[in-house]
Amino acid sequence: MPSNILLRPGPETMASTDRVTAAVLIIGDEILSGRTQDTNLNFIARYLTTYGVDLAEARVVPDVKAEIIAGLDALRTRYDYVITTGGIGPTHDDITADSVAEAFGLPLIEHPEILEIMTRRWGGAELTPARRRMARVPEGGTLVRNQVQGPPGFQIGNVFVLAGVPTVMRGMMDDVVPRLRTGAPVLSRTVRVDGAGEGVIAEPLERVAKAHPALSIGSYPFFGPEGYGSNLVVRGRETAEVEATAEELIAALKGLGAKSIARVDD
Amino acid sequence: MPSNILLRPGPETMASTDRVTAAVLIIGDEILSGRTQDTNLNFIARYLTTYGVDLAEARVVPDVKAEIIAGLDALRTRYDYVITTGGIGPTHDDITADSVAEAFGLPLIEHPEILEIMTRRWGGAELTPARRRMARVPEGGTLVRNQVQGPPGFQIGNVFVLAGVPTVMRGMMDDVVPRLRTGAPVLSRTVRVDGAGEGVIAEPLERVAKAHPALSIGSYPFFGPEGYGSNLVVRGRETAEVEATAEELIAALKGLGAKSIARVDD
Repeated sequence: MPSNILLRPGPETMASTDRVTAAVLIIGDEILSGRTQDTNLNFIARYLTTYGVDLAEARVVPDVKAEIIAGLDALRTRYDYVITTGGIGPTHDDITADSVAEAFGLPLIEHPEILEIMTRRWGGAELTPARRRMARVPEGGTLVRNQVQGPPGFQIGNVFVLAGVPTVMRGMMDDVVPRLRTGAPVLSRTVRVDGAGEGVIAEPLERVAKAHPALSIGSYPFFGPEGYGSNLVVRGRETAEVEATAEELIAALKGLGAKSIARVDD
Repeated sequence: MPSNILLRPGPETMASTDRVTAAVLIIGDEILSGRTQDTNLNFIARYLTTYGVDLAEARVVPDVKAEIIAGLDALRTRYDYVITTGGIGPTHDDITADSVAEAFGLPLIEHPEILEIMTRRWGGAELTPARRRMARVPEGGTLVRNQVQGPPGFQIGNVFVLAGVPTVMRGMMDDVVPRLRTGAPVLSRTVRVDGAGEGVIAEPLERVAKAHPALSIGSYPFFGPEGYGSNLVVRGRETAEVEATAEELIAALKGLGAKSIARVDD
C-alpha cells in the first residue's frame, strides 16, 4: 500500500455496512499483446479495498468499440461502480469516450472546462483537432480531475473514465474515491506458517474457514528458508471476529510439525 | 520477452494464416483485493503473441464457483482457447477443478498419473486428503505437466487449467503451447518520436493508420529527456506491409518539430 493512500483523508460520504461493489475495465491492445505489464488494476484494487469497496471483477478488452461497449454494459449493470482505464488520449486508437457515450446512448460534447484547461496550456494554434478530441465527454458527464498532468477524465452515471498512464490514473483516483458510497472497510490479519506446506495445513484450515462463513480465509503458499510455508489471510468486516479467527487458526495449526506459526499483521 | 521463450523450439502444429484467439481467466480473491500484483497475464500474453495466437480478452474473477463458471462459459464458447490461472492447490479456496468440471458437466475423477506423481513425492501417510484434492481432473481431461514442481494442471476441451504461482504457471505454459493451433505470428516495428507529443502527431498518425486497415498501429506516449514523445508500434502479419508502414510513418511525421524520429525495433 503506497503511503499516500493511507495519509489521505477519508471519503466524505458515510461508510455503510452494505457491500459496495466495483469492477475495473482495462482498455488497451498493449495489455493483451503483452507489450505493457498492467499495474493499474492492483493500484485501484488496493485503493478500493482501503475504502471498503469490493472489487468484484476485472476485464481487459482491446481497442475495439464493440468490445469496450459489451464489457462496459456487462459490468455497469451488475456492479455499483465501473472504473475504466486507457484510451482517452488524442490518437486514433483512443476510442473510450466514443464507446462510453454510445453505451449510454448520449452525444459527445466538447466540455467547456476541458477546452479552457487545454487553451491555458496550449494556446490557440497548438490546440490541434487531435488535442480537442480529449475535450469530448458524454453530455451530462462531470470531470474527474487530476493534479498530475493532462486533461481530466470524466464520470457518467456509475462509470468513471480514467487515463491509462499510471501516474495520471493515480491522480484521477483521488478525485474518484470521494464520490463513492463506501462500505465498511475490510480488515485483514495474516498468520504465517513456516515449514509446513498447504497439503499439511489444508484440513484444519478448512475447518476454521467453514466455522466462519462471513469471513474470507485465503492461503498463499511460498517456498522459503524453512521449506514450504503459507500466509493465511483472514479478511472480514468485524474486527473482533477477524482477530479471534486468526488466533483460532494458530491454535488449530499447532502439532502439525510447522517450524513456526506467527501473526505477521500487515 | 524472457529469453527462454525465444529459444524454445516452435510448436509442432503447423502455423496457419487464420486468426487464432485465446482468452485468459485469472481466478483469485488475492488479485481483486490488491494483495497480489498479477504478472501471469503479461507472461501468457507475450508467449501467445510469439506464437501468433491473439489474446483477445482477459477476466479476473473471485474464488466463487458461480463466477468462475460464468466467466469460463462466456470465454470458452467465444474464443479458440481459454487459459485459467489459480485455484488448483490443496486448500478449501482452491475450487477451479470443481468449477471447470461443473461448467463442462463432467464428473471429477482422481487422475491415476497425478496420484502416482504425488505418491512418489509424498509417500503414503503424507498423501493427505487435502493433497489428493490436487489429483482431481474432469473425466477425459489430459495433464498439463510442468518441470518446476508440484502436481500437473489439466486440459479439458479448449480450456487449459494452470497454477497461479508464476514459476509453476510458466513451466506449464511450455506444455500448453505445443497443443495450440497457431496463427501467423504478429510482427511489430516501433518508431520512436522524441520531442513531439501525441497532440502534434495524431493527425498524420491517423492518416497512415487509416491507409492500412489490416494493421494495428498504437501510440504509447512517454515523457523523456526531450519532453513529450511516443512509441508508435505497427503490428501486422505481413512483413513487407509492416516494414513499409513504419517507413511511411517516419516520412509522415517529418516537419512537425520532433527532435528525432527513429526506428527502435524490438
